[in-house]
Amino acid sequence: MAVYTEVSDDELVLFIAEYDIGAVVSYKGIAEGVENSNYLLKTDQGTFILTLYEKRVDPADLPFFLNLMEHLAGQGIAAPTPIKGRDGNALRRLGGRPAALFTFLDGMWPRRINPDHCAALGEGVARLHLAAADFAMSRPNALSLASWRPLLDAVAGRADEVKAGLARELTTELEDLEAAWPTDLPLGVIHADLFPDNVFFLGPRLSGFIDFYFACTDFLAYDLAVCLNAWCFESQRTFNVTKARRMLTGYRRVRAITDGELAALPMLARGSAIRFLLTRLYDWLNTPPDAMVTRKDPLEFLEKLRFHRTVKGPGDYGLD
Amino acid sequence: MAVYTEVSDDELVLFIAEYDIGAVVSYKGIAEGVENSNYLLKTDQGTFILTLYEKRVDPADLPFFLNLMEHLAGQGIAAPTPIKGRDGNALRRLGGRPAALFTFLDGMWPRRINPDHCAALGEGVARLHLAAADFAMSRPNALSLASWRPLLDAVAGRADEVKAGLARELTTELEDLEAAWPTDLPLGVIHADLFPDNVFFLGPRLSGFIDFYFACTDFLAYDLAVCLNAWCFESQRTFNVTKARRMLTGYRRVRAITDGELAALPMLARGSAIRFLLTRLYDWLNTPPDAMVTRKDPLEFLEKLRFHRTVKGPGDYGLD
Repeated sequence: MAVYTEVSDDELVLFIAEYDIGAVVSYKGIAEGVENSNYLLKTDQGTFILTLYEKRVDPADLPFFLNLMEHLAGQGIAAPTPIKGRDGNALRRLGGRPAALFTFLDGMWPRRINPDHCAALGEGVARLHLAAADFAMSRPNALSLASWRPLLDAVAGRADEVKAGLARELTTELEDLEAAWPTDLPLGVIHADLFPDNVFFLGPRLSGFIDFYFACTDFLAYDLAVCLNAWCFESQRTFNVTKARRMLTGYRRVRAITDGELAALPMLARGSAIRFLLTRLYDWLNTPPDAMVTRKDPLEFLEKLRFHRTVKGPGDYGLD
Repeated sequence: MAVYTEVSDDELVLFIAEYDIGAVVSYKGIAEGVENSNYLLKTDQGTFILTLYEKRVDPADLPFFLNLMEHLAGQGIAAPTPIKGRDGNALRRLGGRPAALFTFLDGMWPRRINPDHCAALGEGVARLHLAAADFAMSRPNALSLASWRPLLDAVAGRADEVKAGLARELTTELEDLEAAWPTDLPLGVIHADLFPDNVFFLGPRLSGFIDFYFACTDFLAYDLAVCLNAWCFESQRTFNVTKARRMLTGYRRVRAITDGELAALPMLARGSAIRFLLTRLYDWLNTPPDAMVTRKDPLEFLEKLRFHRTVKGPGDYGLD
């Protein structure tokens, strides 16, 4: 939970005067998200989300993120839509930070995942991929293969503080990934961070996606690999093949999964697992235990990684 | 900022089903308040605040607080109003905690206080006092005179870590307060924590009061003493007599200040200053510097206390 940048009522009233959304009647910092400061803002015309971008977001990437969200809204994908001021700009500054205002997205992220959620997720991700297909901008995935070696170098010396033998296991794994990472899969804009807290539901219906701040141009199937890791394991860390099947078949109803994508899925899933393992491990080793940010357990992804190493083929993900 | 108790979407949907307020479409933890967990909740019928009471609130006090808020709402005082479930109860449990649902109060607390705010505050506090006059319940002020000696005993041994000579100065001050604390002033229900973040405005208009969880039965003029300390000093800690005059004359427009209250005001203001000084000092000495809660500077109130010791009469507070 986090509000890093405090905004005064006077500053806010001046900021909102740049928009055609009525007068502010309330704003409250939201205790969610660890990257940016978010406020829930009410005006006499509606409810909005105000985001102030903190240090982890590169301001140079913001036009990609905001234009993508606007493009998706235009394609009928439910997601926060950037609101433009009277000057036509969606991106401005507040409290010394880049800031943008968004439509409010109804829905709640599911704390307890069931297979129906996974089916809706698969369909939704496929629609997201199709809707982004004609988006003109691109952005490399800064947290894909090329980043893992320097991340591992940064944590290897202390990785065994977290678990004995971890540095060695990750080194071997990374050598495998570097040798076998796919190169010729269908590319497109992906969300790249499709954890349950970024996907809203209203009852059984997927009501939208949030938090596009890792979105990038990469293999479309990499989003599925993230979803396998983020949605298809039980809390006891065992793989739930039913959830995986529902997620992947949901996706296939909207966009075909190519043979090449299917064959690459275990490797992509291992890559996605090491990506979250390495960034969490880095944060774990570099965040004091009593700091204001909740540290996420990196070892959860070690067990997921090990599972994907055992996968023999699509059948292990529930596909025929 | 704080959300101490996490609530799942499933739990919340069950909880809200006890009320006649429509279906949940969103809820977000609010990064405000250090005592309780607060969620901003949207249903298809409106916006609400959901509060989960954490350890610092005695559950035995909750009927007083909730009934007081309901009483005030009935008297036309703008404040969060507890919402009753279909069973007639406003107080129930959620996430293992006592919990209650409230109407949403529009407004923003003023970060930069001007004299007009103080005038509106004075009027509003007087209206609050009059509206509470026929409230049937009572609750002793657990943080008045009788509590300061044990609080001082708990911090005296380490007070000089914060400032040399502090323990001795507070001991002398407390002896003065114990000898001269008034006994025969008009009593009633007071808010007792009227800091700017508990008073909302829409433009120049006071739109309501929040956070009644220190409300109690005590001298009405003690609320004015709190307001003098919380609203009428500049950030450089100098007393602003204009703000005090506007606040007190605003109050007098609605409820007369008795001669006894006027005469006691400096002593009450010293008491209010030592109350916040002692609780902040206790928290300061017992909260790790890097904990999740922002520690508030106790010494701010030492300077305020010293000012009130120099007050010769009502003229020093801007009154004729």
